[in-house]
Amino acid sequence: LVLSYGVQASHPSLVITQSDVLEMRKAVIEQGSFATAYGKLKAKVDLQMALPIEVPVPKDGGGGYTHERHKKNYQLMYDAGILFQLNQDKTYADYVRDMLLAYVQLYPTLDLHPARKVKSQNPGKLFWQSLNEAVWLVHTIQAYDLVYGALSAQDIDSIETKLLKPVALFLSQGQPSTFNKVHNHGTWATAGVGMAGYVMDEPEWVEKALYDLEKSGKGGFLRQLDELFSPQGYYNEGPYYQRYALLPFVTFAKAIDNNDPQRKIFEYRDGILLKAIDTTIQLSYDGLFFPINDAIKSKGIDTIELVHGVALAYSLTEDPGYLDIARHQDHIILSGDGLKVAQALDKGLAEPYQFESVAFGDGSDGKQGALVIMRSQLAGDQALLFKPAAQGLGHGHFDKLTWQFYDQGKEIVSDYGAARFLNVEAKFGGRYLPENESYAKQTVAHNTVVVDETSHFNGDVEVGNLNAPTLNYFDTNQFGTIANGDISSAYPGVKLERTLALINLAELEKTIVLDLFDVRASAEHQLDLPLHYLGQLIGTNFELSVNTEQLSALGSNNGYQHLWLKGRGQPEQGLAKVSWLNENGRFYTHTSLVKGNEEFLFTQIGANDPYFNLRNEQGFIRRVKDKKQHQFISILEPHGEYNPGKEYTLEAESKLTGLVHGEQGDLTLIKITMAGMPYLIVVNQSADASTQHSFQYQDKSLSVNGRLAVYALNNF
Amino acid sequence: LVLSYGVQASHPSLVITQSDVLEMRKAVIEQGSFATAYGKLKAKVDLQMALPIEVPVPKDGGGGYTHERHKKNYQLMYDAGILFQLNQDKTYADYVRDMLLAYVQLYPTLDLHPARKVKSQNPGKLFWQSLNEAVWLVHTIQAYDLVYGALSAQDIDSIETKLLKPVALFLSQGQPSTFNKVHNHGTWATAGVGMAGYVMDEPEWVEKALYDLEKSGKGGFLRQLDELFSPQGYYNEGPYYQRYALLPFVTFAKAIDNNDPQRKIFEYRDGILLKAIDTTIQLSYDGLFFPINDAIKSKGIDTIELVHGVALAYSLTEDPGYLDIARHQDHIILSGDGLKVAQALDKGLAEPYQFESVAFGDGSDGKQGALVIMRSQLAGDQALLFKPAAQGLGHGHFDKLTWQFYDQGKEIVSDYGAARFLNVEAKFGGRYLPENESYAKQTVAHNTVVVDETSHFNGDVEVGNLNAPTLNYFDTNQFGTIANGDISSAYPGVKLERTLALINLAELEKTIVLDLFDVRASAEHQLDLPLHYLGQLIGTNFELSVNTEQLSALGSNNGYQHLWLKGRGQPEQGLAKVSWLNENGRFYTHTSLVKGNEEFLFTQIGANDPYFNLRNEQGFIRRVKDKKQHQFISILEPHGEYNPGKEYTLEAESKLTGLVHGEQGDLTLIKITMAGMPYLIVVNQSADASTQHSFQYQDKSLSVNGRLAVYALNNF
Ligand SMILES: [Zn+2]
Ligand SMILES: [Zn+2]
Repeated sequence: LVLSYGVQASHPSLVITQSDVLEMRKAVIEQGSFATAYGKLKAKVDLQMALPIEVPVPKDGGGGYTHERHKKNYQLMYDAGILFQLNQDKTYADYVRDMLLAYVQLYPTLDLHPARKVKSQNPGKLFWQSLNEAVWLVHTIQAYDLVYGALSAQDIDSIETKLLKPVALFLSQGQPSTFNKVHNHGTWATAGVGMAGYVMDEPEWVEKALYDLEKSGKGGFLRQLDELFSPQGYYNEGPYYQRYALLPFVTFAKAIDNNDPQRKIFEYRDGILLKAIDTTIQLSYDGLFFPINDAIKSKGIDTIELVHGVALAYSLTEDPGYLDIARHQDHIILSGDGLKVAQALDKGLAEPYQFESVAFGDGSDGKQGALVIMRSQLAGDQALLFKPAAQGLGHGHFDKLTWQFYDQGKEIVSDYGAARFLNVEAKFGGRYLPENESYAKQTVAHNTVVVDETSHFNGDVEVGNLNAPTLNYFDTNQFGTIANGDISSAYPGVKLERTLALINLAELEKTIVLDLFDVRASAEHQLDLPLHYLGQLIGTNFELSVNTEQLSALGSNNGYQHLWLKGRGQPEQGLAKVSWLNENGRFYTHTSLVKGNEEFLFTQIGANDPYFNLRNEQGFIRRVKDKKQHQFISILEPHGEYNPGKEYTLEAESKLTGLVHGEQGDLTLIKITMAGMPYLIVVNQSADASTQHSFQYQDKSLSVNGRLAVYALNNF
Repeated sequence: LVLSYGVQASHPSLVITQSDVLEMRKAVIEQGSFATAYGKLKAKVDLQMALPIEVPVPKDGGGGYTHERHKKNYQLMYDAGILFQLNQDKTYADYVRDMLLAYVQLYPTLDLHPARKVKSQNPGKLFWQSLNEAVWLVHTIQAYDLVYGALSAQDIDSIETKLLKPVALFLSQGQPSTFNKVHNHGTWATAGVGMAGYVMDEPEWVEKALYDLEKSGKGGFLRQLDELFSPQGYYNEGPYYQRYALLPFVTFAKAIDNNDPQRKIFEYRDGILLKAIDTTIQLSYDGLFFPINDAIKSKGIDTIELVHGVALAYSLTEDPGYLDIARHQDHIILSGDGLKVAQALDKGLAEPYQFESVAFGDGSDGKQGALVIMRSQLAGDQALLFKPAAQGLGHGHFDKLTWQFYDQGKEIVSDYGAARFLNVEAKFGGRYLPENESYAKQTVAHNTVVVDETSHFNGDVEVGNLNAPTLNYFDTNQFGTIANGDISSAYPGVKLERTLALINLAELEKTIVLDLFDVRASAEHQLDLPLHYLGQLIGTNFELSVNTEQLSALGSNNGYQHLWLKGRGQPEQGLAKVSWLNENGRFYTHTSLVKGNEEFLFTQIGANDPYFNLRNEQGFIRRVKDKKQHQFISILEPHGEYNPGKEYTLEAESKLTGLVHGEQGDLTLIKITMAGMPYLIVVNQSADASTQHSFQYQDKSLSVNGRLAVYALNNF
């Protein structure tokens, strides 16, 4: 006798619907990647179900046993609920029921969590903070919905009245400030409470989740969609946090669409949710997120949150590029959308996802600066990140106008990311390390100007949050991609302005980076422009005085105390070159046009690091002193190949032999000679570049359309 | 009209025979990996043949234009010759002919090479040293043989009399000391001259190539086979040089076998050549050679020399394990043996190559110590290298009894390898860097004992070559693999003895390393035992005093001048732990059993390095002072996983809680507690362990069969 459970009038009806379930049940008994994923999950859950259910009295904070156990429990209930729907084996529903009933016993006995932070506005009961409790509810309410059809009326009553409703009330009216907050924590709370409203037939809860407790529209899920993303779907804290923020949005939106299709949630704000998912993908290189702000570098597009996001994006659009990402993720989720992805992948429908050059406007209005990504495929897969973006709240770094560069699968000009060993107890309990504040967030840890050895906004995040840079322009055409941004509030009386361009030299099948950094100040300052590179120094074309017997820290504050000064040199007027070799086997030469007044300081991270917490990476700082005004002009040039395995080395030397900077009205003219080929790079810096601009250069009539033109002068 | 060239009475008949050619011609017109390889080579050669032939007057030394051009020419002639045989298109033969005739014009005009080294015993004419000239002949004589059938009698006459015979005579009777030398340079010379003898019907040359110029048997190819390899096929300089040395052996032997099968060259010295090929493969981990001595670390089993070697090995044995290696190499050579490999791969006949635990005896008698490789698959692919091996001539390092450890695809306990950026002009002309002598070769750059901050043999390679360590025993059984070696000549009056074991803890599915290093001296000394690890320090279980504001070099000589002293600590009696995290995402804890008198010095490579030539890797040195006798006892334990991408960290802490060392007669008894499980490790150190040895331990009757036994004490 096979009983058929689960397809009831109204359950399940959150992320997964009854019609999804019917399709999924067919798929698990056929060959295919969906069935494989099912088999894998079943094996994993079966192992866990063979062990006794543990629902411990809450005691430990983040990372501790009871904390981790309750996290494990909600995932287990969710997974077992899915399995029950797919194979209709009541064992799985019973397991979920038994665990829910254990929580029914426990929850009413609980006061606030003993390990909550002192004076915390958002303590939990099962967890030390209510954020975790909201995540618990988002999973548990779905698990409950999935097994609802197999529960007795009595169990339904006690689970709803003694557990799920109290939790939902605790997270909504019990904590108005968190629930109403337009913030990621609020998204989890509104998602949990709203979904509880759907499942337990409390339509008012749904309204409150959408519009805040007073239904004012000042908070709630829709306001979060309005404010937490820019119009292009960029999340202010950067991709590392964006992917984390995505999950409650994707989950609750799917539930809203299944229950209230007339709300057209996926069309809300011109399809903001899809844009947010897509932007998260765009903010990656070679599968890993660009590590701006407090990001852990190994986090990438295979993160579970984005697996859910990509499944939704494919389901909404059927764009085969998302299948490319799904294939990379190699993780099929057991949902209706997951099934669509699995079947499309099995049919071989994937097509390459298109990574593009984009300026992602920052802030809810998209006008708080921008995060700029430039890409080129001319000489392999290259990307440049330029950050005239807003501070990005508490996890933001003091890195206005910084940049990074990627080539052939590797980071070349780097950002330290966060100083943290996630969950490694021996490393400051797995939390952000003290060096995250003292080094990683500081301006000198980035590739942008530091004035008087002080970080931007004097290291004050509140000030930073109020003062975004301006993106003056962004343009992309056949010659490359260019952007210009400035900020006058990072330091009093100092304007920082940077133009960065990723430029194609088509004749040489080469892409280079042009960097023009202008500093104008009302008084004299010391200006430092660091460049953090990954690789081994190959050489410089100027003399270095190297500290061979003893090293000292470069400074005592604002991150300088963490840099060993390895050597220094002051190149004469002309081209100053620094070359390094990256582990990708390619050489990189950074050439500066100097007037003899820039000093180069070579550094290694690791001073004042009593616990060996920092990675010992290399960099150099260009320094000028007592300057009211200075322009740092440079070119980064990838070249050659080092292949000791096959015993050849190609083009280990820079081919840039000439670099001349000039101005002609609003035009910046950079003449370079690369591999003997003279090129003219024209940048239109005028306020409006919407029309074609013609000009004379060495008796030739040239023109620039938009912001950037590149002329191979030999072609005339 | 299609003319059929090339299958003449006697040409080609070196590495490739006429019957090979017939098979290969069939294969190139069918689908398959051989045809693909043919197409690739043809495209490459066609591009070159479209350019004018260049045979410049010799001028430049290694790396310079004329040097590289003549190297390119012999490869081109060889490749074009092969293509001619395969497609019978006379264009290819004509190209070889034209280039040979250009050499016919040039060669008779040449005196010794202008860039030869002063007082050199072995100058060339086309090249600065005759080694390159011999390599030229090995390739060119084959190219000539391949196109012979398409040449006119007049061309044959001028090519033989004005070019090939003079070159062969120059390399044989013209340079007796090189030709007769039992050394890799001699192998190239004898291979070239011997093959020239076969092709140009000079049987005396073959005899001289085999037995030396006087046919005395004191030199020549056979003597080289006798002396350059140990009975197991290990080449004294290590795998980096072994793979290089292989090519002339493999090439000439194949030619001998094709021309004089009655010499049974492949059976010579119990099949030494096949053993040499196989040993080269065994001396690799995850595709890369173990980087002992002057090795460049990225060199691996896909090196062209070993592609030829593996093709021969498969042809001789049809062992499907060689196909596994060939598949990894992903390079099909266009020869009869290459065809066999291609066809077998296409048929899917490959089976996993078996990497084994072996002690490779060193020296021509196999008794000059040994290079020991231990492997375990219990917890993934692990390997330990232990080096009670001989000095290995001029490229050898002062690293007696050093070790290395590999796990999950990465080097964990490392050897610096050679300090060199091959062919990178900016790095000391691409030659071995000065730091290769001053650091990489020195004892402190290795994981073995340094007495009084002086390198083994006081850094004298001549002394080193005369004094090999002794391998006292090697054993491998179900409990793991163990070896013991000693040396009393590295320092006067000091005996160094080390026991290293890779031990399986089956119940825990874990493999650990046991290291017992005994030093016994006639006077008091300072003893340093460095350990160079790859990864980031996670922590120590004892206090460190870290140099946070300033770093100084640890010493002034013998490599110590290149180490920054980052910090120091003196753990109390008991277990002293140092943990690090490798980029493979695994933790490693090194636990020492200390008595409170060992100081730990934490170091980073990079002091006294004015050109940033060294990699800034980490290490620690255990130091005791004023000791006549000391035993360093330690365990290396791989554990856990750091996965910040998936946001979990498992078992970041060492599970080793107990370590007790005892002796009972000839038995060393190590009791450890790992993850709460007590284990007894028994090492039989007696002179003869051929019989089973029974003993009492805590009222239990135990026994050890061979050298090693491991008891899970809970099982009693
Ligand atoms: Zn940063
Ligand atoms: Zn070495």
